[in-house]
Amino acid sequence: MTVRIAVIGAGIMGADHARIVAEDLPGACLQVVCDMDGARARGVAETLGAVDTATDPGAVIARDDVDAVIVASPDATHADLSISCIRAGKPVMCEKPLSASSDDCLRVMEAEQASGTRLVQVGFMRRFDQSYVEMKAALDEGILGRALMMHNFHRNVATPNADFTGAMAITNSAPHEFDVARHVLGAEYASIWAAQPTRSDDRVAPVVMVLRTTGGQLVNIEINNNAAYGYDVRGELVGEAGSVSMAPVLHSRLDSALSNSSRYDADWRGRYAEAYRRQNRAFLRFVETGRFPDIAASAWDGYAAALVAETGVKALATGNTEPVRMIDRPAFYA
Amino acid sequence: MTVRIAVIGAGIMGADHARIVAEDLPGACLQVVCDMDGARARGVAETLGAVDTATDPGAVIARDDVDAVIVASPDATHADLSISCIRAGKPVMCEKPLSASSDDCLRVMEAEQASGTRLVQVGFMRRFDQSYVEMKAALDEGILGRALMMHNFHRNVATPNADFTGAMAITNSAPHEFDVARHVLGAEYASIWAAQPTRSDDRVAPVVMVLRTTGGQLVNIEINNNAAYGYDVRGELVGEAGSVSMAPVLHSRLDSALSNSSRYDADWRGRYAEAYRRQNRAFLRFVETGRFPDIAASAWDGYAAALVAETGVKALATGNTEPVRMIDRPAFYA
Amino acid sequence: MTVRIAVIGAGIMGADHARIVAEDLPGACLQVVCDMDGARARGVAETLGAVDTATDPGAVIARDDVDAVIVASPDATHADLSISCIRAGKPVMCEKPLSASSDDCLRVMEAEQASGTRLVQVGFMRRFDQSYVEMKAALDEGILGRALMMHNFHRNVATPNADFTGAMAITNSAPHEFDVARHVLGAEYASIWAAQPTRSDDRVAPVVMVLRTTGGQLVNIEINNNAAYGYDVRGELVGEAGSVSMAPVLHSRLDSALSNSSRYDADWRGRYAEAYRRQNRAFLRFVETGRFPDIAASAWDGYAAALVAETGVKALATGNTEPVRMIDRPAFYA
Amino acid sequence: MTVRIAVIGAGIMGADHARIVAEDLPGACLQVVCDMDGARARGVAETLGAVDTATDPGAVIARDDVDAVIVASPDATHADLSISCIRAGKPVMCEKPLSASSDDCLRVMEAEQASGTRLVQVGFMRRFDQSYVEMKAALDEGILGRALMMHNFHRNVATPNADFTGAMAITNSAPHEFDVARHVLGAEYASIWAAQPTRSDDRVAPVVMVLRTTGGQLVNIEINNNAAYGYDVRGELVGEAGSVSMAPVLHSRLDSALSNSSRYDADWRGRYAEAYRRQNRAFLRFVETGRFPDIAASAWDGYAAALVAETGVKALATGNTEPVRMIDRPAFYA
Repeated sequence: MTVRIAVIGAGIMGADHARIVAEDLPGACLQVVCDMDGARARGVAETLGAVDTATDPGAVIARDDVDAVIVASPDATHADLSISCIRAGKPVMCEKPLSASSDDCLRVMEAEQASGTRLVQVGFMRRFDQSYVEMKAALDEGILGRALMMHNFHRNVATPNADFTGAMAITNSAPHEFDVARHVLGAEYASIWAAQPTRSDDRVAPVVMVLRTTGGQLVNIEINNNAAYGYDVRGELVGEAGSVSMAPVLHSRLDSALSNSSRYDADWRGRYAEAYRRQNRAFLRFVETGRFPDIAASAWDGYAAALVAETGVKALATGNTEPVRMIDRPAFYA
Repeated sequence: MTVRIAVIGAGIMGADHARIVAEDLPGACLQVVCDMDGARARGVAETLGAVDTATDPGAVIARDDVDAVIVASPDATHADLSISCIRAGKPVMCEKPLSASSDDCLRVMEAEQASGTRLVQVGFMRRFDQSYVEMKAALDEGILGRALMMHNFHRNVATPNADFTGAMAITNSAPHEFDVARHVLGAEYASIWAAQPTRSDDRVAPVVMVLRTTGGQLVNIEINNNAAYGYDVRGELVGEAGSVSMAPVLHSRLDSALSNSSRYDADWRGRYAEAYRRQNRAFLRFVETGRFPDIAASAWDGYAAALVAETGVKALATGNTEPVRMIDRPAFYA
Repeated sequence: MTVRIAVIGAGIMGADHARIVAEDLPGACLQVVCDMDGARARGVAETLGAVDTATDPGAVIARDDVDAVIVASPDATHADLSISCIRAGKPVMCEKPLSASSDDCLRVMEAEQASGTRLVQVGFMRRFDQSYVEMKAALDEGILGRALMMHNFHRNVATPNADFTGAMAITNSAPHEFDVARHVLGAEYASIWAAQPTRSDDRVAPVVMVLRTTGGQLVNIEINNNAAYGYDVRGELVGEAGSVSMAPVLHSRLDSALSNSSRYDADWRGRYAEAYRRQNRAFLRFVETGRFPDIAASAWDGYAAALVAETGVKALATGNTEPVRMIDRPAFYA
Repeated sequence: MTVRIAVIGAGIMGADHARIVAEDLPGACLQVVCDMDGARARGVAETLGAVDTATDPGAVIARDDVDAVIVASPDATHADLSISCIRAGKPVMCEKPLSASSDDCLRVMEAEQASGTRLVQVGFMRRFDQSYVEMKAALDEGILGRALMMHNFHRNVATPNADFTGAMAITNSAPHEFDVARHVLGAEYASIWAAQPTRSDDRVAPVVMVLRTTGGQLVNIEINNNAAYGYDVRGELVGEAGSVSMAPVLHSRLDSALSNSSRYDADWRGRYAEAYRRQNRAFLRFVETGRFPDIAASAWDGYAAALVAETGVKALATGNTEPVRMIDRPAFYA
């Protein structure tokens, strides 16, 4: 019984999701590739052998031959498309962010709760990355003692465009760190403080944030979107008895010209290919069984990430430690 | 058009291949699981949702609803089953070794050549491992200059049984090293020398081998089947201008109790899971297109590994450098 | 012409300085070991073959057969003993801190300026550590582009006593980080923010600080005095074009019991033995030549460290970003 | 009571020894720098503040104001100068090799035994290197179980001249590996086998050797004098229960241009600076106390290294495993 999946959005992320469905999800079928730009949809669909293409996401969600939906369209459409899926009673995996607006995330949560069924998975794929899995396992096994801090550094080679701002670093890049630290620590955020160093040019400088959780832990984040040297994500979880750090995933090292070296990727795709694959497989199991995957991100997690990002933008502007004022967690998401 | 694959042999290796076909090969279908022990076949088949089970490999190979075969039965049956597949005109991926006997390998080659078509892929999955891919790429890109040597160390925790011998280390474990070094260097072996240190107990001691290729390169191999500390494979390719080394694949490191540590696996499965997956995908493409995969091992490669293993056993006995007397490479395998 | 050095204080640090003078400073002579506890002074002096012992530091400083002084007595005495050395016209290397009070540091600076001669070296030995030397060199050579940030993590196994506080972490441990980051970046501090996570016991929790320099750089410091797992210092200097990180200094790695591991020291002595040696050699050259060592810390640096520590204690209490209000750098220390 | 040391030979090695005596050996005095080339002797002596210079080594050894001698003159003079020191009753540290001829080494041993006193230390400084100290300690502590093998790789950037041969690699470079493996394993060599790959140019190719000890252990050595990429020494000691590997001594790592890299030195001096310092301090203690240093190399060790090198040259020529025929160890060297 094949699960027929529609992918909405045929940009970089959408095409990647479509490829995973087509090539890496036995039991799934790439039923529809949908994009406002019909030619782009057809390009992806042809390469991957999709059954059909479309340009109207609402119609796609309604189709009888679509069992589940992956939303990878522009961010501003995520919440409404997720709500459409909920109303159609179809499981949806929505790329991050669920919305840039925490209020919109609350709307998704309300719709999902009203439906009475868990239907929304949010694409925080880091939770499926083996490094974080091992960090969380070390904590759960008690090797580290109680968790005290996380250090999470995220570095891109360069921003896609020159008018990228510190606020965008917080709303676009940092949510991965916000989410995975919450996930590993099993805690919510209570406050956030943020600052930026000064660059010599007009590109966006790194943003350094220190968050406090409701459990009293600190999360120290650096988002460096113009790190120049490579795509590099680091993480460390510090406990009272020990510490566990992400190791760079390498397959070889080169000795040459008085140097021993390993390569950085220029973007995230190689680093997280397996995490995306695992995440999408978890989504497929979710569709098949109706049981929400243990470690996947829910609409609640999407809301938490959006709210802390909003608060972080404010903290960066004020220079003060700003409280993160979350609603209580609905029992539905317990 | 789904490719229907039969897996012959439902032991550890066969079950693993069956799992890859069932779960990691979109476009393939696990049609038959065959084992002399019908209960074992049924156990694997049920877990993975195979279409059918069987106990007679010859009959399986002949079935109309089987398009291709993976042979993972006991080593002694590999050559004859491969020949049966050839005669049935069906592509076969035969687990290593193609045969422990180089003469038997020649028989497979003769059958394959007589068929006029490439049908036999041999399961030297190391060629698909990212570390060797990067080592070979560094060589091909010219970063290393001309290749001079390889160092290949293979270490298991312990031999499965106490009567494992040095000769078995050469015929059972070393072929992976023989093959991947040939593959990376693009050369054949001209001679082999071998020795063993003395252990304090009656378990098999490591075997150290130094091989010379027809291109004048040296290949330095350690097979240590009772290394105790972990499953560990190392490799280095030394060229005239530089060197490239396999890096251990890690995802985290632990700080605890005055120690910074990473874990070894107890066996090979985690280390080579992705290589097996890639290999089997290459086999599927081979079945679909009829084009033998560029980097996969052929019957010729199976023959080369068997012959050098036979010669290595002799070298270990004599203590002398023994010539490896290969037949000329048939044009069919060029 | 041997330089006759008196070491004041025969505790752990004083004994270590005495040992370096006696065994690792050709051209220097361990003339006097002075301690309030005469027996302790004699114990150290005998082991190392010192010429004499004493219990009165003022008298020692005045002795004709003492050319230079190393002050390693209790912290509260550092400033006054340094001033005594200045008044006696004798070069002094004062262990950190010059004083816990920035006002006292200003008094030392005034005395030194009044003397018209550079006489005071402060024992921030990290500046001589090869890792920081390489980090600074990478910056100076332009490989990194303009400096943006430093991450400095300092971890001890455990505090010496249970009533160690966060404020003490800032005044006792952090000054090494404050100083070496100022030194590497070549900048002063403009502000500091600080926070602590919550521990499950009553031991002091880590302190996380983010400082801004007058050059707009951020310095991110973790002082973790109860890290449990080992003595571990980490550092990273992030520039606009690249980044340079401290590497742990290792000599071997062990494979054993499914683990690859290296050892942490339980305290700082092994890690910084060479830095202390280099620092004391620089002090000897200073005594011999009268020329203040390029990279050594001066009374000005001692003042800067004390002032930022004082401000950090305030920041930890208020939870706000607190301005660091330094006096202008006197031309004397340019 | 200062020990007055004469250094014979003012080339690279001699100048380095003279510098260590002058700057790093409190308790020692650089009394004479002697070189056939008087100007060269004076150059080194002036830089380091030596008391005197000379051109006649025999006369230097006889001087009343010389307590001990370091021989760093051309290799062919080592044995005779060591014998002169023995006859003068003066402790000598002779740079490696004691002689290229095992017979000459026997002559030194005979002279030393005839003197009735241990007087000769041979400059195999690797024994004092922290990596080997830790490898030997791991073995002695029982962590590794019984030793089975060592892998020792030695790589230089390039040979000093183009007519360097494989035989020279064995006699000039390999003795460090021969000696340190004997030292770590605590065993003598029983046989040696050697081979070389083919290079594309006329520079000397690496030499690969496999030696067997009298304890049944294997020692696998690669001497690669034209490794091009850097000065790099690797070592691993494999035991029945685990393995310990030399770690490269690094102080920082650079992230830049899609690469994470560390630097190799172009020659051995940085890598072994501390080992030379420790070795020469051990020699000074030896002179002061008359007690031969526990881990230092003796004339017996010099003989062993020379004999195995001679046998290795033969093995490389014959292609056979050649027996190493040592005399019995005299009780004098027990």
